[in-house]
Amino acid sequence: MSGSGHGPDDASPAPGTPPAPARRRGRPARAAAEAGPGARERILAAARTQFAERGYDKTSVRGIAKAAGVDAALVHHYFGTKEQVFAAAIELTFAPALTMPDALAGGGADVGERMARFMFGVWENPVSRPALLAIMRSALTNDTAAAVLRGLIERRMLQRVAGELDVPDPEFRAQLAAGHLIGIAMLRYVIKMDPVASADTEEIIAMVAPTLQRYLTQP
Amino acid sequence: MSGSGHGPDDASPAPGTPPAPARRRGRPARAAAEAGPGARERILAAARTQFAERGYDKTSVRGIAKAAGVDAALVHHYFGTKEQVFAAAIELTFAPALTMPDALAGGGADVGERMARFMFGVWENPVSRPALLAIMRSALTNDTAAAVLRGLIERRMLQRVAGELDVPDPEFRAQLAAGHLIGIAMLRYVIKMDPVASADTEEIIAMVAPTLQRYLTQP
Repeated sequence: MSGSGHGPDDASPAPGTPPAPARRRGRPARAAAEAGPGARERILAAARTQFAERGYDKTSVRGIAKAAGVDAALVHHYFGTKEQVFAAAIELTFAPALTMPDALAGGGADVGERMARFMFGVWENPVSRPALLAIMRSALTNDTAAAVLRGLIERRMLQRVAGELDVPDPEFRAQLAAGHLIGIAMLRYVIKMDPVASADTEEIIAMVAPTLQRYLTQP
Repeated sequence: MSGSGHGPDDASPAPGTPPAPARRRGRPARAAAEAGPGARERILAAARTQFAERGYDKTSVRGIAKAAGVDAALVHHYFGTKEQVFAAAIELTFAPALTMPDALAGGGADVGERMARFMFGVWENPVSRPALLAIMRSALTNDTAAAVLRGLIERRMLQRVAGELDVPDPEFRAQLAAGHLIGIAMLRYVIKMDPVASADTEEIIAMVAPTLQRYLTQP
């Protein structure tokens, strides 16, 4: 599938794995040398924009390459398939959300509140919100995009959150809590239904935190 | 915007209002007479299919008319604008979901469980699930579609549910409960994340029902 080489030189990360270090000097790819410094970052930025604006289906490796001013082969060299470029792009977009497990570390009597507060911190941010909406849109319209998102959330977020929990079925519990917050995000930011859409976030947090606390801590 | 007439003869329902009775004999529309009996039903069925398969953006009144074998003017005559055709189509799709307030009537100590059970009854149905997913997809990719869906859920479902509740801010409470269920539906049916995706619905209901009960009944 990938246009890049295989074996030890293969620079394509699997979906959901962290992006490789930003620059790889001295790699034996002529195209990389020709594209000049910062080509990998330009590709990633272009991918992020294209996926966000056009959705998964309508974005192509060729289009990303064009926007980044490089050859399509270089996109394959750095990232692999379109699916893998998407994984790297949403990993970048999701970077703020992926720190959630740190916010929940140690548990405690306010872990539910911390989880709710963390979610709003990410969604109320005017930079990350459209990017998150774009990812949800891609996941809802394309099965591959949904699978990539699933892999990312599972491996980078829910498994880590579950590892912190001292309850039966910790992954199930973590997903119920996350599902609650996703649903509120849908109502508030996508369907924009009042009163949830215009309520003060503190008001929502006060109602939702006890629920999350129960899922995350009660046996 | 609408190609249909205005005034007392206007057959276009406002978004979110119930569709008009299936047939209107003797209406003074030559096109309706020419299209033969059942034209309104054919248009609605075609609209439903087109919106579900192509999404809101890519569906046109002309395309719906073609699929139904009628003139576009007749679509306007019966339903009004594209937005209004969409409203009528999703109202039809949502018909099973719109009976939720009846399932919750009277409240009681198991109203949370009844709400969760109702939601799964609709989503686990192999006929209604793809249709619900298609509506969510349209709402996530088009603001007009989101507004129509919002109007329908507000007027036909949440206001009625809220009317049954004896708590402060009943609409806010009803939305928190609905949001929780929407988020679980996203995880289970869209992102398909395990263990929630493959869990027995009874297992999810057992965990979620107390949360819904708290939102719907606790002061």
